[in-house]
Amino acid sequence: MHNSLVAALDIGGTKIAGALVDGNGAILHRAQRPTPAHDDGETVMRAVENVLAELAASPLWVRATALGIGSAGPVDASAGTVSPVNVPGWRGFPLVERVSHAIGRHLPITLVGDGVAMTAAEHWQGAARGYDNALCMVVSTGVGGGLVLGGKPHAGPTGNAGHIGHISVDLDGDLCPCGGRGCVERIASGPNIARRALENGWRPGPGGDTSAAAVAEAARAGDPVATASYERAAQALAAGIAATATLVEIEIAVVGGGVAGAGDVLFGPLRRALRDYATLSFVQRLTVAPAVTGTDAGLVGAAAAATLGQGEAAVPAGRG
Amino acid sequence: MHNSLVAALDIGGTKIAGALVDGNGAILHRAQRPTPAHDDGETVMRAVENVLAELAASPLWVRATALGIGSAGPVDASAGTVSPVNVPGWRGFPLVERVSHAIGRHLPITLVGDGVAMTAAEHWQGAARGYDNALCMVVSTGVGGGLVLGGKPHAGPTGNAGHIGHISVDLDGDLCPCGGRGCVERIASGPNIARRALENGWRPGPGGDTSAAAVAEAARAGDPVATASYERAAQALAAGIAATATLVEIEIAVVGGGVAGAGDVLFGPLRRALRDYATLSFVQRLTVAPAVTGTDAGLVGAAAAATLGQGEAAVPAGRG
Repeated sequence: MHNSLVAALDIGGTKIAGALVDGNGAILHRAQRPTPAHDDGETVMRAVENVLAELAASPLWVRATALGIGSAGPVDASAGTVSPVNVPGWRGFPLVERVSHAIGRHLPITLVGDGVAMTAAEHWQGAARGYDNALCMVVSTGVGGGLVLGGKPHAGPTGNAGHIGHISVDLDGDLCPCGGRGCVERIASGPNIARRALENGWRPGPGGDTSAAAVAEAARAGDPVATASYERAAQALAAGIAATATLVEIEIAVVGGGVAGAGDVLFGPLRRALRDYATLSFVQRLTVAPAVTGTDAGLVGAAAAATLGQGEAAVPAGRG
Repeated sequence: MHNSLVAALDIGGTKIAGALVDGNGAILHRAQRPTPAHDDGETVMRAVENVLAELAASPLWVRATALGIGSAGPVDASAGTVSPVNVPGWRGFPLVERVSHAIGRHLPITLVGDGVAMTAAEHWQGAARGYDNALCMVVSTGVGGGLVLGGKPHAGPTGNAGHIGHISVDLDGDLCPCGGRGCVERIASGPNIARRALENGWRPGPGGDTSAAAVAEAARAGDPVATASYERAAQALAAGIAATATLVEIEIAVVGGGVAGAGDVLFGPLRRALRDYATLSFVQRLTVAPAVTGTDAGLVGAAAAATLGQGEAAVPAGRG
């Protein structure tokens, strides 16, 4: 098995990426297609098949001994299906079965949510390395996450554990598109940071850039409304991180994604707010750190999950 | 090992109980002392020693092969110490070491928080039996809890996992004695249900009973203020339960403790409120059930935890 590789798929609302990954987490071969997110389900699947065909054309392909899939959620690892919020053509789509059919050879297939995949990558190679209990988060257009418990990524029975973006930290708060109220994502995602700044009177510069990154730049320059919007996001993230630590005992919270790119504008108020919410003795020493793995985290994490056999999904018999 | 027993200690702010428990969870011998909660730490320890001496006097004692301790928290299972909020004389108290010394023979000792112990009991013999992933809660003077993950009680590195009473579901809410804001306990505990009803104009009957049970009785009789106070508690519990399900994927939430005795006055609005907060596909089928184990849950659960070796604490060498 010394020379064995793992095939990995990272399926998001923007791109579908594939790779052959070695035992050190190095990507030896890669393929990518844009996600035709608003087309019908078969068109989206064709993009996946094209990525797989490109991987299979590599001379390294024969060395692959497992295949890991990290997908935008929700996923259902036990059924092998996915229903990504941003890919409406896929609802309960039998992705594991279809991938198994497409590759035309037997490989054990592991399906996890993208938050679990990113967490597996950070635990293998990033800021959560060496920690037995960790929360890893992606704060960008949405807020996702995953857990490491007892030294291993904890995917949960359906592969969705760690969905910190949709826990409520404000039970009377604004309605969230998920149907809940006051979710962490509803307060702390990039679009919500920008929306809140605009609503409270912040105005973009001459370029008209109203992204969360532009709000972060204004905050660094001392704009009080921009600063306040990041502080509110930090407060919601702190309440969510503290809740996670209080529920499952984590030693570190790793925060990645575009919003984490704001640096001290986010991490300063986040660390301060944590003191307000992480109050019990066993959570007071919690560390907060920026994520280390970058855009390949989904692929590397899917490979790691496949290696660990987390959320391994049997192909349902007698279907397709 | 067929005839082997487990010794159990249940240490709370009101009583210190001990028992010898068989492999079916039956209590074959028991001892109990009131907790001298406001005396110095040595006086409290003497009460524990008296309970242990009474157990050791039983002819069954020689069959004990392990000892489990469930204690009011916070505990530190890795250090073997406890710091129960309601026993000020014990702060970082080396309970495992002192118990080991008191019994005068070698027994592996397992220390867990009382929420973890109650959860182990409900998973072994109660409403969580047969579930691989569960949250069990005690809602009474405080709000405590514990988790079952992947088929086993999940104590966490320090034995405190599942502390749902102190996660914030209202980040701008009232200050909690723990130092946080808007904690589940600050909204849903019995004293807070009663306080809120009184503040909003509810008045007790001629007996002057202002307990949460009296508020429940008024709610059953149709009092709108009493009903509203339970609905608010149910909303906070629902947000906390939904957060737990979203973070770690649980199939059932078991609710026990005095406040659960309100029955439909609590469980009706709790099940309705869960629909507002448990929104993602993988948490929508969550079951809510009343706890089955009663006042012996702490003892039975401590025995179960010892059998499982959860949170096993080595006695520190070279101390005492």
